[in-house]
Amino acid sequence: MMAKAVILSTGDELITGRVVDTNSAYIADKLYGLGIEVIAVFKVGDTRERLLWALQHGVELGELVIGTGGLGPTTDDLTTEVVAEFLGRQLQMDEGVAEALRRRFTSRGVEMTPNNLKQALFPAGADIIPNPVGTAPGFRAATQDRKYLIWLSGVPREMEVMLEQSVLPWIAEQRKGTGAILASTFKIYGLTESKLGEILKPIPISDEVRLSYRAHFPDLSLRLTVRGGAEREKIFSELRARIQELIGSYIYAEGDETLEEIVGRLLLEKSWTLALAESCTGGYIGHRITRVPGSSAYFKTSAVTYSDDSKIRFLGVQSATLKQHGAVSRETALEMAEGVRRQAEADIGLSVTGIAGPTGGSPEKPVGTVWMALARDKESDARLFRFQGDRERVILFASQAALNWLRTSLLAGQNSSDGG
Amino acid sequence: MMAKAVILSTGDELITGRVVDTNSAYIADKLYGLGIEVIAVFKVGDTRERLLWALQHGVELGELVIGTGGLGPTTDDLTTEVVAEFLGRQLQMDEGVAEALRRRFTSRGVEMTPNNLKQALFPAGADIIPNPVGTAPGFRAATQDRKYLIWLSGVPREMEVMLEQSVLPWIAEQRKGTGAILASTFKIYGLTESKLGEILKPIPISDEVRLSYRAHFPDLSLRLTVRGGAEREKIFSELRARIQELIGSYIYAEGDETLEEIVGRLLLEKSWTLALAESCTGGYIGHRITRVPGSSAYFKTSAVTYSDDSKIRFLGVQSATLKQHGAVSRETALEMAEGVRRQAEADIGLSVTGIAGPTGGSPEKPVGTVWMALARDKESDARLFRFQGDRERVILFASQAALNWLRTSLLAGQNSSDGG
Repeated sequence: MMAKAVILSTGDELITGRVVDTNSAYIADKLYGLGIEVIAVFKVGDTRERLLWALQHGVELGELVIGTGGLGPTTDDLTTEVVAEFLGRQLQMDEGVAEALRRRFTSRGVEMTPNNLKQALFPAGADIIPNPVGTAPGFRAATQDRKYLIWLSGVPREMEVMLEQSVLPWIAEQRKGTGAILASTFKIYGLTESKLGEILKPIPISDEVRLSYRAHFPDLSLRLTVRGGAEREKIFSELRARIQELIGSYIYAEGDETLEEIVGRLLLEKSWTLALAESCTGGYIGHRITRVPGSSAYFKTSAVTYSDDSKIRFLGVQSATLKQHGAVSRETALEMAEGVRRQAEADIGLSVTGIAGPTGGSPEKPVGTVWMALARDKESDARLFRFQGDRERVILFASQAALNWLRTSLLAGQNSSDGG
Repeated sequence: MMAKAVILSTGDELITGRVVDTNSAYIADKLYGLGIEVIAVFKVGDTRERLLWALQHGVELGELVIGTGGLGPTTDDLTTEVVAEFLGRQLQMDEGVAEALRRRFTSRGVEMTPNNLKQALFPAGADIIPNPVGTAPGFRAATQDRKYLIWLSGVPREMEVMLEQSVLPWIAEQRKGTGAILASTFKIYGLTESKLGEILKPIPISDEVRLSYRAHFPDLSLRLTVRGGAEREKIFSELRARIQELIGSYIYAEGDETLEEIVGRLLLEKSWTLALAESCTGGYIGHRITRVPGSSAYFKTSAVTYSDDSKIRFLGVQSATLKQHGAVSRETALEMAEGVRRQAEADIGLSVTGIAGPTGGSPEKPVGTVWMALARDKESDARLFRFQGDRERVILFASQAALNWLRTSLLAGQNSSDGG
C-alpha cells in the first residue's frame, strides 16, 4: 500500500560538499505527513554506475522511490536515460513537451539548442509530471513488480511546486483508506536530553509508537508519533496525556512555537512593551526577540551595555553600585532592569549581566555566573544562574533562560494589573 | 589507500524531514579537500535494521565510512551497540571516559543517571575520539578487511571539532605518501556563489587541482587544494596568485578569520572603541562583535533602538528628523551613529536602520532597504543598501555589510589620527 519510500538526491555538488541537500528533508516531511515512512535517503553523484546502484537499492527498500536532480539539458544530466535503462525501456520524445519547449524559446527570442530537446525525452510509458516553473518536467513510472519511481527537478523551487501540484495528490489518492500518522512535538525547557530520556522511559516504544528527540542547542524538543490501525487516536491521546503528566512543567509549547514567539504573543495579548539591558549576551536576546516578524509592536529597545560607563550613561546605574558590588551582581542587575524600563518607558525591563568567559571569572564568580533581573511597575526580582560551557554556550543558555523567565512571568502575571 | 568514503547520517529526525542534514555536506567538503572521493551519503533512521543496512553497504562501497548521530544517552541512541554488533565485538566500558563523565556531572552539581554511563561504552578495541565540547565521544574501528569506521556526534558543533581535531589529522597521516595536500581558504564578501564560479572559470580544474565553494549564508568561502608530485608547491603558489588577481578585492581573509574577529583585531591594534546603534538588525551585530572573546576591550555598547522614541531618548536623534525623513533615512542613520558615538564616548559609532520585513515596506523604501552610517571624530558617512530576501536574510546581509564596512574603514584609516 505504498507505505515505505526511499528518496534519492543526485548531483556531484551534493557529494563534494558544495551544496547542502535540502530537497530530501522537504520531501521526507511531506511524505511523513501522508503516513509514508522514509526508509533511507541516498545522495549520489551524476554517474551511471552510482545512479543505477541507488535505483536498485531504492526499489529494494521502498515501494516508492522519489528522486531529484539531473533532468537538465547538459551532458552531465544523465538521469532520464539511466532510469530508462534501469526500467528496461526506450527513451521516447513527448511531442507536447517538445512543442512547449520550442514555444518557450521562441517567446524569449533565444535559439533552442538540440541539447534542450533532451528534456522532452522520457522512458516509454512514463507519466509526465509538469514543471510549471522551469524547463525540465519530471516523470512517474512503475517497475515490473509494481514499485513506483518518481523523478523531479533538483531545483528546490521547481521540486516543491511539482511535488505539491502533482505528486502529493497522486500519493494521497493511492493511499486512500490507510490512516495518517498522528504526531505531536513538545518543546522543552530545563531538562537535558539524557534526563528527558530517563523520565520518559515508562512510555512504551514500538514500531507504531515512536519518541524522537531533537537537541538543537539550546532548544530541545520531543516528537511523539503514532501510526497503525483504528486504535491509534485513542493511543495517541493517552500518550500525550502521559507525557504531559511526566514532563508537563518542562514543556513550554506543543507545536513549533519558539520561546521568542511565545513571549511576543503574550506581550501582544497584554499590550505590554519590553526593554532589555544586555551585558554578557551582547545583543543576542534582542536579536531573538526581533527576528520575530511584527516584534516592533512590543519591543522598544535593548541597551547592550558592555562597559561600566555604558551602564551608567544609558541605564543610570549608580557608579557606587558598580564599585561596591561589581557589574555581575544582584544590585547591578536590578538597577539595569529598572533603568532600562524607566529610560525606555516600557512595561517590562529585563537585564542580563554575567561572565561569558573565557576570561573574567574568579573563585566567587566563575565563568558562567549570570545575574538577571526583571522590573515591572511595582516589583523587581533578580535571579542568579550558573551556566556551564564555553562562551557561546553561556550566551545561548542565558538567552534561553531569560526568555523562559519572561514567558513564565508573563503567564503568572495574567491577572496582574501593573502593565501599561 | 583510503580513496573512497561513504558518509552515514543517522537519526529519525533526518528521515522525517524535521532536520536538514548539514553534517554530511560539511564532512564531504573536508574529505574532498583531502582528495578523498565521497561515493554516497546515506541517511537512515535510528533502528538496528537500518543502521546495519547502512554499515553493510557503506563498507561495500567505501574504504572509509564516517557516520554521525545516535551517540547520545537516550533509548533511541543505538549506534554504538549496533556498530559493535556489526563488527562482531563486545561493548566495553572505557574507564577514562566514565570517570570524565562522573566528574562533569559532579562539577555541575547534577545527578548522573545510569543512562549517561552508556556514553562510556565502545566496541572493544576501538580508538576513542574525544569530544571536547560535549558528553559523547566518538570512536574509530577497523573491520576485518581493513576498512575504517569512524563515528562522531551528530551535533554539528561537536562533529566539527571532533573532525578537525582528531579525524582529519588521522586521515592525512594515513594518506601520507600520496603527497601532502596544499590548501588555502579564501573568505569572500560581495560576490554570489554563481558569480564567483563564473569569474574563476579560467582556473584549470583537474584531479590534482580543486576548487570547492562553501556558502554558509551570509558567509561565502572558496577553497583551493592542490595535491600531486614535486611540482605542487609551484602550482599552488601560481594558483593563489591567479585567484588574488581575479577576485582579490572581494577577499577579506585568507584563512578562517571571521569578519567580527578582523574588526576586533583592527580596533585593538588602534586602541579604538566601538559603539553601535542598531535598529533593524535588533542586536545581531552586537552579538557578532561580542561573541569574540576579549571584545570587552574595544566594544562599549550597542543601543538597539527599535522604536522611534528609543532613538530619541537613547541616541538624541531629533524628532524633527524622524518626522521629516523617517526612521529609515540617511539623516536618521547619521544622527544615530553620531549620537551613540557621543553618548558612549566611543571612537567609532556605527548605525544600521532599515526595513527587515515582511511588512513595513513601501514603493520608495521596499523591504530590504537599509541605511547605515559611520561616525568618527571629524567625519561621518552614510550608505544605502538594498538587500533581497526574507527577514532573516536581510538581518544577516545587513550585519555582514556593516562589519565589512567597519573593516574597510579601519583599514583605510590606518594613517588617520582621529582615534582616541
